[in-house]
Amino acid sequence: MSEKSERPIILITNDDGISAPGLRSLVEAVEGLGEIVVVAPDKPQSGMGHAITIGMPLRLTRVEDYKKGVEAYHTSGTPVDCVKLAVDKILKRKPDICLSGINHGANHSINVIYSGTMSAAMEASIESIPSVGFSLLDFSVEADFTAAKVYARKIVESMLKNKNGDRHFLLNVNIPKVPLELINGIKVCRQAYAKYDEDFDERTDPTGKKYYWLTGEFKNFDEGTDTDVWALEHNYISVVPVQFDLTNYRLKKELEQNWNLE
Amino acid sequence: MSEKSERPIILITNDDGISAPGLRSLVEAVEGLGEIVVVAPDKPQSGMGHAITIGMPLRLTRVEDYKKGVEAYHTSGTPVDCVKLAVDKILKRKPDICLSGINHGANHSINVIYSGTMSAAMEASIESIPSVGFSLLDFSVEADFTAAKVYARKIVESMLKNKNGDRHFLLNVNIPKVPLELINGIKVCRQAYAKYDEDFDERTDPTGKKYYWLTGEFKNFDEGTDTDVWALEHNYISVVPVQFDLTNYRLKKELEQNWNLE
Repeated sequence: MSEKSERPIILITNDDGISAPGLRSLVEAVEGLGEIVVVAPDKPQSGMGHAITIGMPLRLTRVEDYKKGVEAYHTSGTPVDCVKLAVDKILKRKPDICLSGINHGANHSINVIYSGTMSAAMEASIESIPSVGFSLLDFSVEADFTAAKVYARKIVESMLKNKNGDRHFLLNVNIPKVPLELINGIKVCRQAYAKYDEDFDERTDPTGKKYYWLTGEFKNFDEGTDTDVWALEHNYISVVPVQFDLTNYRLKKELEQNWNLE
Repeated sequence: MSEKSERPIILITNDDGISAPGLRSLVEAVEGLGEIVVVAPDKPQSGMGHAITIGMPLRLTRVEDYKKGVEAYHTSGTPVDCVKLAVDKILKRKPDICLSGINHGANHSINVIYSGTMSAAMEASIESIPSVGFSLLDFSVEADFTAAKVYARKIVESMLKNKNGDRHFLLNVNIPKVPLELINGIKVCRQAYAKYDEDFDERTDPTGKKYYWLTGEFKNFDEGTDTDVWALEHNYISVVPVQFDLTNYRLKKELEQNWNLE
């Protein structure tokens, strides 16, 4: 088989599920750039982080007529499970790139850690597949993906052209909620130190027992002008290069020099 | 209230659930070092990564008689939910440290990303609570935690003594599965590039439909002698300092210099 065709294989996934408009927008954004295979969860999986399914089997179902020329599947698993299944069971060879999104909602700053969208992209990066997660700062199902699509295509075209040899290449791309003409361009950023201040909403159920809803206020503690939060506030597309080596080398050095742990 | 007592508050959680022997071992290991509060999932939550519960409320239940002098709760949420609930709803003030584990099974190398144990510790670190996750390289419910307990206490004592002012201080500690007398000491390491080669086991259910079990072989692709995998193979306790800033600064620089993304 001469499966190693010239056309790149583009694996697309998300965490909002197979029926999300953001997923369809991402497919439309990159149409024509390669052979597109969609493998997405069968239901929304926001906030799943890097969860994988252990102790339960997974279902994998072909979706007929998702879009002309696009091979599509949904699975019963998490976004990370989708990437694992795609690589092991669906694709005839390792995809050239993996795209995740377009997420309905922000994944800047600390959200990269909770995000199923970014975890799926990171899983692909661990598997040596250059990857990007895209998120639009609009939770709405009817969000306008026009600008997001334009920039997603631009970034993917650039990735396919500028292969830098980094097999673990991984970007976290967020798009501000403004019309295309108001976007000031793309900024390469670092992850801001910004997080949620949790405030669980305590309620009482009909039998008198307490239960708790997670709510919280997002706060940016980072005054840098080189962060993703800053860029988005100034109507830039934020691009944060991401890695899965979580080693804190500064602290490693400090422990080696100052701690008497032995 | 003079709640700011001299006794440190030690928050303890895990991902194997409230009834796990590893959790009890961790409590025993640090008894006497402070006021211990346990907040753990009500069921096993391995492989949950940094998942949080969105769209469903949580239950929080006081556990009577967990252990004399220990305040204990279980929640219906993920390990990360446990930390959020503890900080927002249970503790009278921010804990001095958070400990997670002792996990039944390894969390070295790439496992740090999938691990509920490490995600709980990371959540505390994001909340500016110095934290450590402990994992023993033995999946068994009857695992022998003797050596793990000795070294967990040693590390926690050292943490409480050497407050280095780093509010986001976070360690990933793994203990080899060998008797105490065979342990060669502690090694500060970096995270190895080692991962699972997935191989889904495809089966057919009684109605003729396919389903898939996640299986895989662990492979170390990292030849460094400064990694956690190397240390554990040589009977050392591995200590990897961990961070939640996932920015890849090397790639950031490269993109700024070489990519024409604007």
